[in-house]
Amino acid sequence: MPSSSTSRLPTIVDVARAAGVSRQTVSNVLNSPDVVAPATRARVETAISDLNYRPHASARRLRTRKSSTIGVRLDPMQNGISGAVLDRYLHALTEQADQRDLRMLLFTAADPLDEIGHFRRLLDGADVDSFVLTSTSYDDPRTDWLLEHGVDFVSFGRPWGRDMSDPQHRWVDVDGHDGVAQATRALLAQGASRIAFLGWPVPSGIGNERRRGWRETMLEHGVLDGTGLDALDLVVEDSVALASARVQGLLDQGVTFDAIVCASDSLALGAFMVLAQSVPIVGFDDTPVAKALGLSSVRQPVGEVARATLELLCDPADAEWSGEVGSAEDPQHRLLAPSLILR
Amino acid sequence: MPSSSTSRLPTIVDVARAAGVSRQTVSNVLNSPDVVAPATRARVETAISDLNYRPHASARRLRTRKSSTIGVRLDPMQNGISGAVLDRYLHALTEQADQRDLRMLLFTAADPLDEIGHFRRLLDGADVDSFVLTSTSYDDPRTDWLLEHGVDFVSFGRPWGRDMSDPQHRWVDVDGHDGVAQATRALLAQGASRIAFLGWPVPSGIGNERRRGWRETMLEHGVLDGTGLDALDLVVEDSVALASARVQGLLDQGVTFDAIVCASDSLALGAFMVLAQSVPIVGFDDTPVAKALGLSSVRQPVGEVARATLELLCDPADAEWSGEVGSAEDPQHRLLAPSLILR
Repeated sequence: MPSSSTSRLPTIVDVARAAGVSRQTVSNVLNSPDVVAPATRARVETAISDLNYRPHASARRLRTRKSSTIGVRLDPMQNGISGAVLDRYLHALTEQADQRDLRMLLFTAADPLDEIGHFRRLLDGADVDSFVLTSTSYDDPRTDWLLEHGVDFVSFGRPWGRDMSDPQHRWVDVDGHDGVAQATRALLAQGASRIAFLGWPVPSGIGNERRRGWRETMLEHGVLDGTGLDALDLVVEDSVALASARVQGLLDQGVTFDAIVCASDSLALGAFMVLAQSVPIVGFDDTPVAKALGLSSVRQPVGEVARATLELLCDPADAEWSGEVGSAEDPQHRLLAPSLILR
Repeated sequence: MPSSSTSRLPTIVDVARAAGVSRQTVSNVLNSPDVVAPATRARVETAISDLNYRPHASARRLRTRKSSTIGVRLDPMQNGISGAVLDRYLHALTEQADQRDLRMLLFTAADPLDEIGHFRRLLDGADVDSFVLTSTSYDDPRTDWLLEHGVDFVSFGRPWGRDMSDPQHRWVDVDGHDGVAQATRALLAQGASRIAFLGWPVPSGIGNERRRGWRETMLEHGVLDGTGLDALDLVVEDSVALASARVQGLLDQGVTFDAIVCASDSLALGAFMVLAQSVPIVGFDDTPVAKALGLSSVRQPVGEVARATLELLCDPADAEWSGEVGSAEDPQHRLLAPSLILR
């Protein structure tokens, strides 16, 4: 930062000079006023007021060893359709952290190892007390590192492939299985039977859950068997254009379907570009795009996720875990239900 | 933040205890090692290493009076279509700040006065050295406050209604007039002549600039006079649904037009919902929605805006201003050109 004469903050030395006392005397006035003679104290207080001197917060931090700051990595911008959920989460987290007088410190990282490097530097510098992780993956090296180093963190996202009931790893997540199951049940109730699913390639913790939500609901309903479902199980990366191509391919093969559930609004938009309103389409994340196009979508309760994140981070429960993982009886893990927005 | 036994960082007292010395001796080893006997120093250094003690960064901050942190208000989520530009800017700013070893600290605010309250608290706490402002408005009280208090800041957005050449108010902005003029000229070159404009109500600094870009280009081209243009000048709040209604209203009135330029992609989407591909539509901000729908749009160089912001903040030019405001000769202000993405 530039340090111009107009913007330089007054220092304790400036106050000492103005009051005609030593630096130590100013420090005493600030920290142990009783040891300073009243007349001297008055002189120092006048100088503090005249100069608008602000005792540096770092001194408070040294005493408290708390920066009241939470570090969070800002994910690289992906496509702005589905990626918007993490931005909404960041907004909600920042607003609610403000209410708790906590601050959010942002950084970026090229990959998980680079992110760990940032953890180390931010902790070494005592710039943050804790972290919020997003975009958890299978065998996430970040959580290993944080657990090993005894650093406080909460993840928005489950520890895929790990022990999800581990009380050391506090997490909040939204139940994608439930969201897609809700969508599938709603379409079945509307009379659809050959419901296709458009989702991401495995392995993806989030993607697998959403796919299972469709598959299990369809099997329970009994209208199609596993082989029947395989023909309607469309695998595609999260891209509007690839989704359009995949749906067009299905039409070209003559495979019939009467509704389609998608793992994201990006995929739903891709389907919409081909199908328009010929069959019901349900997306995931209830983005402005889904709203604008009149598509149904599954909404994540982002504000609630932010609230639960801060509760787990700031008000850790003493209670022992005594129930289903993510249930009300499990104080370290919160699995929140999404809601289906029908349009 | 919770302070559990696993996560508590070792303090200088822990080091002193482990090494069997006083707190002051540990401090001397850290700050004036020459005054400590070599054997004692070795004992303290072993304890520091064994305990993985990290001299608290606040001590460094006290010495340097620099937090190397930039405060930025996170705007409330608006509609996620056009609002995505500020999120993209935040991503770019955070990435580039990382490269300069600066940190971004986020806060939210209900209104400009609340934001000023945050400025005060963050400065009192020495949590930040400077601010980046976004969403500047006419007679913005935030800039008055920052200028009065000699606080370093740069705004993404011009000081609407103020002296834009004021060297105390450093700013970066994107030339919306130029962006809309580019779009209008491209449509004229494609053979359109009755080009409508869909933009926001006055007064809006950004909105007025974009509208002028259309109006002046049309007048220069001479195909319509002022009265002719008035009939094609559509005023609407930034809403997909309101834009659709306004365009439908124009059709219902029997007003003909052969292209439409919009002040945002939200408005362009609204027009697209009514017009589909019957006439060329150009949006503003080149959001994923425009890309997905195949709409042309004006793209803001967000990465360049972030770079210029940090340059103005960190490497202030000594050169005197000597040219057009925002030109290469004006070191405190950067008016960047957007680019037209034709689809």
